[in-house]
Amino acid sequence: MLFGGVEAGGTKVVCAVGVGPDAVVDRTTIPTTSPGETLDRVIAYFRAQRAAGRDIAALGVASFGPLDLASGRITTTPKPGWGGTDLVGALRRGLGVPVALDTDVNGAAYGEHRWGAGRGQGTVVYVTVGTGIGGGAVVDGRPLHGLLHPEMGHLHVQRHPGDDFAGTCPFHGDCVEGLASGPAIARRAGRPAHDLGPLLSRTVALEAHYLSQLMTSILYLLMPHRIVVGGGVLNIPGLLDAVRAATAERLGKALDAVPATADLSTYIVPPGLGGLSGVLGALGLAERMVET
Amino acid sequence: MLFGGVEAGGTKVVCAVGVGPDAVVDRTTIPTTSPGETLDRVIAYFRAQRAAGRDIAALGVASFGPLDLASGRITTTPKPGWGGTDLVGALRRGLGVPVALDTDVNGAAYGEHRWGAGRGQGTVVYVTVGTGIGGGAVVDGRPLHGLLHPEMGHLHVQRHPGDDFAGTCPFHGDCVEGLASGPAIARRAGRPAHDLGPLLSRTVALEAHYLSQLMTSILYLLMPHRIVVGGGVLNIPGLLDAVRAATAERLGKALDAVPATADLSTYIVPPGLGGLSGVLGALGLAERMVET
Repeated sequence: MLFGGVEAGGTKVVCAVGVGPDAVVDRTTIPTTSPGETLDRVIAYFRAQRAAGRDIAALGVASFGPLDLASGRITTTPKPGWGGTDLVGALRRGLGVPVALDTDVNGAAYGEHRWGAGRGQGTVVYVTVGTGIGGGAVVDGRPLHGLLHPEMGHLHVQRHPGDDFAGTCPFHGDCVEGLASGPAIARRAGRPAHDLGPLLSRTVALEAHYLSQLMTSILYLLMPHRIVVGGGVLNIPGLLDAVRAATAERLGKALDAVPATADLSTYIVPPGLGGLSGVLGALGLAERMVET
Repeated sequence: MLFGGVEAGGTKVVCAVGVGPDAVVDRTTIPTTSPGETLDRVIAYFRAQRAAGRDIAALGVASFGPLDLASGRITTTPKPGWGGTDLVGALRRGLGVPVALDTDVNGAAYGEHRWGAGRGQGTVVYVTVGTGIGGGAVVDGRPLHGLLHPEMGHLHVQRHPGDDFAGTCPFHGDCVEGLASGPAIARRAGRPAHDLGPLLSRTVALEAHYLSQLMTSILYLLMPHRIVVGGGVLNIPGLLDAVRAATAERLGKALDAVPATADLSTYIVPPGLGGLSGVLGALGLAERMVET
């Protein structure tokens, strides 16, 4: 039995067919354009897979949001044309299989929990630091939902004393996404995050200051077994270690009774599935739906 | 079938026998002294209940911590003599029934989820603001654990611009417990939190500033269906409404797509079980252990 996974992002949609990370039998990438065109191409891809004998029993979708999981729709995204898009309805009608929907980051958290750096850990948080900052969680093996899915990028942080950058978030002046995402880095530095030149060490210091606050907040409120951190910004040399060091300093002696926090290099970790956490997590959500 | 509940606090231990909030058949309060003496009195109480025909099938304990739930022990509490106390072992040996252990705040969250202000809501956070600040959570009906239980009182907050109080936390200068707990209020004001006189309005403003940050952090990371706020500090006149207003202001338009956050008076709510959230939650944990 094969499953389908779709990771829907702001610029591209990754589709995969398989049964877990070691048995992905096909994969493709589709540019994100209008909702109608994009979903038509996703449907056409899985129909072509079916025609080639690779029929899927269920489809998992890990999508940018915010999402209304009850109705299967994107709600109020700033992405032009996508507000209100009925993802689940369109894909279910187009493919005739059950469709599981979650956020991109909940999907990635599920993928990392099931097959990646959080394997064997019941409660796993996945944080991405890239064009935006987001976080998803799996608690006792189940993606975390309540009133909505988590929206970790909005978390307020204490400003670095030397940072007077206004922030890029339209809602808040001091949320972690507005101060520490890739676009925030680039706008503050006046040059791209992958080419910081002499601003590298200052950027690393600021990022560690802000991202360590996200890490400790996740610890104090969710206390996961592991935190997986992905996204392009983590490619900045030295940043992951700097985040670990700043997190340890912030924790101080507060969690001395918790051995796992003594060595954050095995607690705050890069994705085990590389760039495929999201699409594999989506595929896993489809498997989970059939299993349960 | 009857169950026992024990809420173990720093100054007193509340014990109850019953089956849920409407059928508590007996209740007592024991002062918290040494672990040996206190647990002996708890055991003697439930033995006397048994002798009177009110035998319990299981015992739930909601205790101050931090706890090691795997071994059933208190770990590194600053409370003299209590570090390392084997709560579960002592009670199981003394009473010969299965014992379920959780934190005081996870217990209260479970009580409020099952029978109180969070009834019918899958994911509920319970926050107490009193001698300390703590928070517990029930996710999809199950108390939240991971590496440890939540330790929400350690959450860092942005300081109020006009507040130069050093804080009462031995670990951090700017955690919510150190700046907003009852002792913090009293030490900053130079008078008790229940008698603030002319300092009332300033205290309410500071508390709303700090506690609203705890509320938004809980929303962004855990997104519960409801937040229940208890503890003595909430008796300060006007404080709960001030916390709601400050939370709404902090959220801004960030969660406009979530109707429940439009009216925080039904989202951030006082306990439905009054002061009995903890002991009834403990009793509920015993029921849950037998049910599952």
